[in-house]
Parts: sequence; C-alpha cells; structure tokens
Amino acid sequence: MIQKSMDLSKGKVKINIGQKVLGEDLLIFSGPCSVENLDTMRDIATKLKALGVDVLRGGAFKPRTSPYDFQGLKDEGLEILKTIKKEFGFVISTEILDVRDLDKVDDFVDLIQIGSRNMYNYVLLEEAGKLGRPVVLKRGFSATVAEWVSAAEYILNTGNEKVILCERGIRTFETTTRNTLDLNSVAYLKESCRLPVLVDPSHGTGVRSLVKPMALAGIMAGADGLMIESHSAPDESISDAQQTISMEVLEEIMKTSKELWRYR
Amino acid sequence: MIQKSMDLSKGKVKINIGQKVLGEDLLIFSGPCSVENLDTMRDIATKLKALGVDVLRGGAFKPRTSPYDFQGLKDEGLEILKTIKKEFGFVISTEILDVRDLDKVDDFVDLIQIGSRNMYNYVLLEEAGKLGRPVVLKRGFSATVAEWVSAAEYILNTGNEKVILCERGIRTFETTTRNTLDLNSVAYLKESCRLPVLVDPSHGTGVRSLVKPMALAGIMAGADGLMIESHSAPDESISDAQQTISMEVLEEIMKTSKELWRYR
Amino acid sequence: MIQKSMDLSKGKVKINIGQKVLGEDLLIFSGPCSVENLDTMRDIATKLKALGVDVLRGGAFKPRTSPYDFQGLKDEGLEILKTIKKEFGFVISTEILDVRDLDKVDDFVDLIQIGSRNMYNYVLLEEAGKLGRPVVLKRGFSATVAEWVSAAEYILNTGNEKVILCERGIRTFETTTRNTLDLNSVAYLKESCRLPVLVDPSHGTGVRSLVKPMALAGIMAGADGLMIESHSAPDESISDAQQTISMEVLEEIMKTSKELWRYR
Amino acid sequence: MIQKSMDLSKGKVKINIGQKVLGEDLLIFSGPCSVENLDTMRDIATKLKALGVDVLRGGAFKPRTSPYDFQGLKDEGLEILKTIKKEFGFVISTEILDVRDLDKVDDFVDLIQIGSRNMYNYVLLEEAGKLGRPVVLKRGFSATVAEWVSAAEYILNTGNEKVILCERGIRTFETTTRNTLDLNSVAYLKESCRLPVLVDPSHGTGVRSLVKPMALAGIMAGADGLMIESHSAPDESISDAQQTISMEVLEEIMKTSKELWRYR
Repeated sequence: MIQKSMDLSKGKVKINIGQKVLGEDLLIFSGPCSVENLDTMRDIATKLKALGVDVLRGGAFKPRTSPYDFQGLKDEGLEILKTIKKEFGFVISTEILDVRDLDKVDDFVDLIQIGSRNMYNYVLLEEAGKLGRPVVLKRGFSATVAEWVSAAEYILNTGNEKVILCERGIRTFETTTRNTLDLNSVAYLKESCRLPVLVDPSHGTGVRSLVKPMALAGIMAGADGLMIESHSAPDESISDAQQTISMEVLEEIMKTSKELWRYR
Repeated sequence: MIQKSMDLSKGKVKINIGQKVLGEDLLIFSGPCSVENLDTMRDIATKLKALGVDVLRGGAFKPRTSPYDFQGLKDEGLEILKTIKKEFGFVISTEILDVRDLDKVDDFVDLIQIGSRNMYNYVLLEEAGKLGRPVVLKRGFSATVAEWVSAAEYILNTGNEKVILCERGIRTFETTTRNTLDLNSVAYLKESCRLPVLVDPSHGTGVRSLVKPMALAGIMAGADGLMIESHSAPDESISDAQQTISMEVLEEIMKTSKELWRYR
Repeated sequence: MIQKSMDLSKGKVKINIGQKVLGEDLLIFSGPCSVENLDTMRDIATKLKALGVDVLRGGAFKPRTSPYDFQGLKDEGLEILKTIKKEFGFVISTEILDVRDLDKVDDFVDLIQIGSRNMYNYVLLEEAGKLGRPVVLKRGFSATVAEWVSAAEYILNTGNEKVILCERGIRTFETTTRNTLDLNSVAYLKESCRLPVLVDPSHGTGVRSLVKPMALAGIMAGADGLMIESHSAPDESISDAQQTISMEVLEEIMKTSKELWRYR
Repeated sequence: MIQKSMDLSKGKVKINIGQKVLGEDLLIFSGPCSVENLDTMRDIATKLKALGVDVLRGGAFKPRTSPYDFQGLKDEGLEILKTIKKEFGFVISTEILDVRDLDKVDDFVDLIQIGSRNMYNYVLLEEAGKLGRPVVLKRGFSATVAEWVSAAEYILNTGNEKVILCERGIRTFETTTRNTLDLNSVAYLKESCRLPVLVDPSHGTGVRSLVKPMALAGIMAGADGLMIESHSAPDESISDAQQTISMEVLEEIMKTSKELWRYR
C-alpha cells in the first residue's frame, strides 16, 4: 500500500495556522520548555507576541527519564495555557502523553504535540489524530525516516491530514551535542513527502550557542518552520535551561530566517 | 535520589512464577509472536507444556511500524489466551499497548509485558505497575541501560517491585542481524541491579539459526531466563517467522541451558 | 595538556589558498570522485575553472571496501593531476593512503587529503603533516568530534598548523541517506576550535538531489568552504555517480553560497 | 565476485598455532595491553606459561587518541618481546601500525595484529598479509560485519589464508560499557564464514568485572578462542588498567571455557 504521506500526486499538505499557511509561509513556534507559573508565562507571552511568534509552545506534561524528576504542572499547567490563550489570543501547541488527557485540551489547545519518546505510541497517535486538529509529530530520537513517516500514517489513517513533522535530532555515538540534528532528513522529506516539516534546533543541539546557526541551517535545508525553546530569563528555566535561548537571540533568528526564505 | 532498582543493600528481587522462583531458577518464556487462532494456540500450548516451558507468551495486540500491517487479533486474541489459561493452567504473559486495555486482562494474565516501543511510555508503565502483577519491561531498542533502569523505576515507584528486565537487542549501524543483542548489559545488570533479567535472542538476532547460540551465550552472560519465539510450524507464523524456532530447537536450548546453569 | 587546536587565545588558523584566505573567504573544492582519464579531467577542469572553483579535487588512490573493486588509476592518476596542474594552474587536492606515496606528490599537489577511513591512521597523519602543506582531514565516519580534533593534533604536533577539518557525514542507524551530515559539529567547531572547517554534502548525503540544500545548510551552520563531487557527465562517473552533481547545479550552489555569506 | 572468506565449499580455515589448531581447539591469547619493561614482561610470561596460555600478546606500538599520551615503547618494546620469545618459547602476537615496521618483526613475531583503528587501512592489511604469517584482524569499532569480512579479503587476496577475525566490541549509543560486544557477529560468522573468530571481552566491555561472564558468553556464541588483557598487577598497568584482569580470574575463565567447549 502506498503511504498517504508519500503520494506526491495529491499535492503538498498545507495547514492554516493563525493568519499564515504552514507549507507556504515561515512559521515560528516558541516558548518555554515547561509551563512554570502564570506570571512567567504572561511575561514570556507578551514578549513572544511582540516578536511576532506564530505559535506558543509550553509543556504541562513533561516526560522525564526519571520518575523522581519534575513531571510538569499537569492540570495546573493546562489552566495556565488556557488563561494565556484567552488573554493573548495565541495559537497554542502542547504535548500530550496520555490518551485520557486529550479531552481536557480539546477546547483550547490548537495543536497537539507528540513528543519524541511517544512517536511509537501508536495508540496515542490515533487518538490524537481523531481530534481533527493539527498534530506535531516529533521524530523519535532513534527512528528512521521511514518509521517516522509510517508513524504519521497512523494519524493520516484516521482521516486527519494535518500532520506536521518535526526533526529534533537523533541519537548517535556523538556526545558533544545532546543529539545530532539530522537536516538530511529535512531535505529528503521536502522532496519526497507531502507533509510540512519543522526543525527544532533546541533539542537538536542541546547547546544554547548552537541554536542560532542550526536554526538557520535548518531553514536552508528546507524547513517550513522552526520550533525553538525560549524564555525571558533562560538561565532560570525549570527544565532544559542549557538549550533555551533569550528573546534577543530569538529575534535575531527570526529576522535572518525571513531574509533567507527567498534563497531556498 | 538513589534508584530503588540499584540499591543492592535491599537484596535481589525474586519473583514466584508457577512453581519456580525467578532470580534463582532458570525460567523459560516461549510461544508464538502473535496469537493466531485457538487451534494453533492449543497445538503450541500442548507442545510447550510437554517441554516444560514455564510461561506461555503470545501477542494479542501487535505494535507494527505501519498501520496497514496486521495489528493482532486484539480482544479475540485475549479470549484465546483466556481459554488456553483455563485448559492448560499455563502462566500467561502478554503485551499491552493501551492503558485502557489493562482492565481486560487483569483476571487471567499473569504477567504484563511492555514492549520495546513503549519503554518510554511512562503512563503505561505506571498503570501496568499498579496492577501489582509482575511486569516484563523490554529494553527500548535505543535505550541506554541507565534509561531502561529509570523506566523500571516508574513501576517500582507504584510500590510494585516485581519488575523483570528483558534485553532484546539494540539498534546499531549493523544490519546483518535485525538488532544487536547487548549481553554486556545483562552482565552489568546482574552485578549492579536488583531486578531479574531475561534475554530474548529472537528479537535480539532476528535470525532463526542464531537463536540457539545467542540463547546459550545469554545464559553465560548471567540471564535469569530466556524469552524465545517458537511455533509448531515456524514458517507459517503470521509475524516474525524468520526468527521463530521449532519445538525441536527449543528443546535443545532448554536442555543445554539447564546444563550450563551450574557454570555461571 | 591543552589541545593546540582548541586554544582560542592563539587566534583562528587562516590558510592562503590561491588568491584567497581560508578562514575569511568562501572556498569551493570540487571535481570528480576519481581521476578517470586525461581527456575527461581536462573537460572537467575547463568547466570548474570557468565557474571559479578554487581547488580541484580528484582521487588517484581510492580506498574501497572490497579489494575486487576499482582502486583508482594510482600513479597514472597522479600523472594526470600533474598535467592538469601545469595546464590550468589549478590548486590541487588529492587523497593519499600510503605513507610511501607522499614523496610522489610533494612537487605538484598543494593539499594532502586524508580520507574518512584513515582518520585514525596516525602514522599517515604525522607523515602528511611533515610535508608542511595544508592537510584536509576528513572526519572518520564514526569519530566523535573530540577524536577528530585529537587526530588533527597529530598533524599540529609536527609543527604544521595548516589543518583543514572536513565534515563528511557520520554513520548512524539511518539508511535513507548514505551518511548523516552532522552540521552540529560544524557549528560547534566554529566556536571552539581554531581550525577552518569544510562541509562535504556529497558524501554527507550520498544523494545527488540533496547536495544543494545541504551545501547551503552547511554554509549557514558556519562552514568556511564546501567540498563537492562534480562531473561534466555525472551519470558516467566511474565511482560515486549517485552523489555527483552537474556543473549547472554546482554553479547554483556557488552563486547562492556567496549571497548567504553575509548572513552568517 | 564471491568473497573467498565466505565460500564455505572450500572448508573452514584452520591454523596451526603452537601445538594446537585454531578452528578445532580452544586457543587463549593473553598478556598486558602494553609491553612495559623486561622484568614485568618476564613476570607475566612466567605466569601465563604456567596457566597454559597459548599466545602471548603485548603492544609495543600503541595507537592512542591523543598524540600527547603514551605511544608504547616502540622498538624497545619489540626487543623485549624478542627476548621473551627466546627465553620462554612463547608464540607472540603484536600489533603493527606502520607498514615500514613490518620488516622489524618478521623474524620473531608469530602473528601480526591489526587493531580496530586500522581495519580500514588496506595498505597495511595487504603488506601484513604478504608476510605469510597469521594475521589477527580486529573488527573496526564501527565496521559492519560485511565491511570486516571485505577487509579480510585484502589479506586473502595476497594469497595468505591465515586470517583470524577478532570481535572486540562496536561503538553504539550505550556508554555503560566502553564498547558493545557484538556476539551476534560471532554466531553469524561461525555459520557463514570460513575464518576462525576470537572474542576480546576486555575491549568488548572495558570493565574488569564483566570480562569473565562475557568471555564465557563468547565461547557459547561460537568463538574459537579468546583474547584477554591480563597482568600480574592489573591496577599498575600503564594502559587499559580498568579492563585488565588478574591471573586468578584468567585461570577461572580458562578452566570454565574448557568445560563449556563440549556444549557448543
């Protein structure tokens, strides 16, 4: 059976997000790793809004390697996102880990995010797909491109075509960087697959100073948008501080990305 | 926080399974990849019983890379396992993919199996742990030993200590075999971790002729037991035929494993 | 001992190549995988000269996985390169595999190339370093950045600082592309290491259509130059045809790379 | 072209070493990582002789990641090995890194060892092969089995069939152990390849306490022999101390290996 995502005769999938069209326009997803508290989130949202960020990302449920680490604010985090949505009118993307939580977010979350650890959690993919909203499907950190695209098929197979692939780095022998951002996969998908592709240079490098060059490299490799962890006080981030950038650097990345757009 | 699984001062975890004690006695888990139909399952169970296999394994829910491939008999497969349990009195182990299915198996499945793709699905781990039965936690095919042990902590943290680790091969650059069976991890865990460890040479090699030598190598590396895919007609297996062994080879492996037990 | 290549207080290493300075100006290395014959080489050199390529690359000695495959024209290939050098005045870079061959190229080859398979061949590195010419040190396809930089130290330790690192893709589990081009390493090296860095998107992808986007991505990641396999009739290349690009595509890459230079 | 090493119709390659036949009898290669000085080497040789070790291994030339680390005693180390050979009549195996050093060892070294870093150094393989002695070809730490066997062909192609493959662990994402010992490769080679195979659990684990279980696992996977780093005072080893075992543990491994031999 030919995969629905690879049948180029059906045309590229385009997704309306706010006033833009993912697949035509450059889209910027940004925000903190974790939703921390309402005040911080308001501060961040104010700044991201001013920069023209398209989608606010922030995690209420955090999958952590150890059960003894901070697992996110959970339902309280969702309430904060709901408030931010109301106050700022932001398009919101957040990660869901448990099929039983999908109901809770259906009335205010615009995009459902599936994290790298859950790319093979096909039950979650199918249930997320059934909501009909766009689903951001992060690449499993050891998934081949073929497996990643096959995972997307679990969503497409529910009748929901709005799948957004997000390259966030793979696991290799290299330890200088947290992951190895595989931009080959982005260039390959742009010529072979119907789905839009984001690049996440934050997880893709794990190193704050490398986020900017790798974001720009991602644009030239063909990415339709960027997902970047940012914070108004990066060093105080509760999680992923070492890869979270400041608003100033985010502004630089957004400015240069726009200028690079025509060279692709 | 010291990990509960690594605190050797608490003694090794031992688990009663049938008349044996995992962690002291050699335990053999075997059966077909998928539950196929009642007649085949009866035939296989008869033969495994005669060989003295300790735990019957068989999948009702099959996580497959593509949604267009056979996904298991699902509820019908559970019914078959229930019948087999009644007729043969077999200890049953089966994989669960969806937290919402745990209820269905609570009255007849003895061990809950978490597959490689779901090792990072912490929600499933916690819910499976809460049942209080032994949980077989297969290593994610790209999980470090540290991540694997941390995943086990999600189960231990529910108060359930009956976690059985199962090494089933990791993903490397090598393509001669389906996976690279990492027996180093078994030797390491036996000296550092409280939990019993199984070796699965079927997925660990993906090649029928390599199952026997690697099962025996696993025993000498320190495994407490083996999990092996077998079938009364291996070539007719609906899934994983190329790595499924015959009853004759299973018998040889069981016989030699017993003789090797005293050399460890 | 602090590594000579990482001591940023000594300033970035800059290398004069033709009329340009590697480390300041964009440098393009291009040419066929193998030196095939004098006529083809003349044809290619004529075209590369017209495009403004800075360094002509071509292999006389080809390290091949199997001894039964074409191993390069060897000494005959060197003679062809010598003729091309005389006729076109091209700066020449070629790979050496055997310390005993270094003498043969000392009078006409400008840069000595060490291939990926020989990055750990420290004997060859030292002897190549002693010639005093620039050495292009390709990253071993499974070398960490730390090992790669340590290999460069074998050359620096001979007193020769003219080492050019070349990222050419690493070996991972991914098989969609021949290698995984690790641009993270380029961004990291540009901020931490004194040595100039090239990107080779030909080996880095192994796929002709991906060479252009990944070359441009390499520029934005911080590369000081590009090494690209090109041919006047790519499909007729004796080796690596599937990753060799045409002169037309090379021209596009060079043109866009120059425009991107100011955005870095 | 069918590979000479894989053409099973020609029969398995057997190699006379001392009074034994590699490919029929269990062979033990042992000794220190580096040749340190004559007194220590005499002490070690006395003990290894008493245990019945078949081949004495010890490195005079040490390939090290950094040029600033100890590189071996070089020619002085060769002199020590020569003396030991004379005094003890030991079969000697030592690693050569430079084709120009092959002459120096031709009169007293019995087996030429090619290390993991030089598996792709085809020039060295060919020149070593031409000596006509057995060549121990260690697997490159990121070489596929297919590439390893193809590297062996470079030696076979010189007319020398006496190639001994040695599995010493591969590079993966796992960092608990120094390398991942790939015993799958041993089981595979024993059924598909004509050449004898050793297992090196010292480099294969990098952890002293894991050497014994993994040596025994190697035997059951099908190894024809073991190569193990040992020292009369392991903690005082100049290199690789953390993976070097004592004479007592070596004795246990040898004793149990012999008993396991008939179960294969």
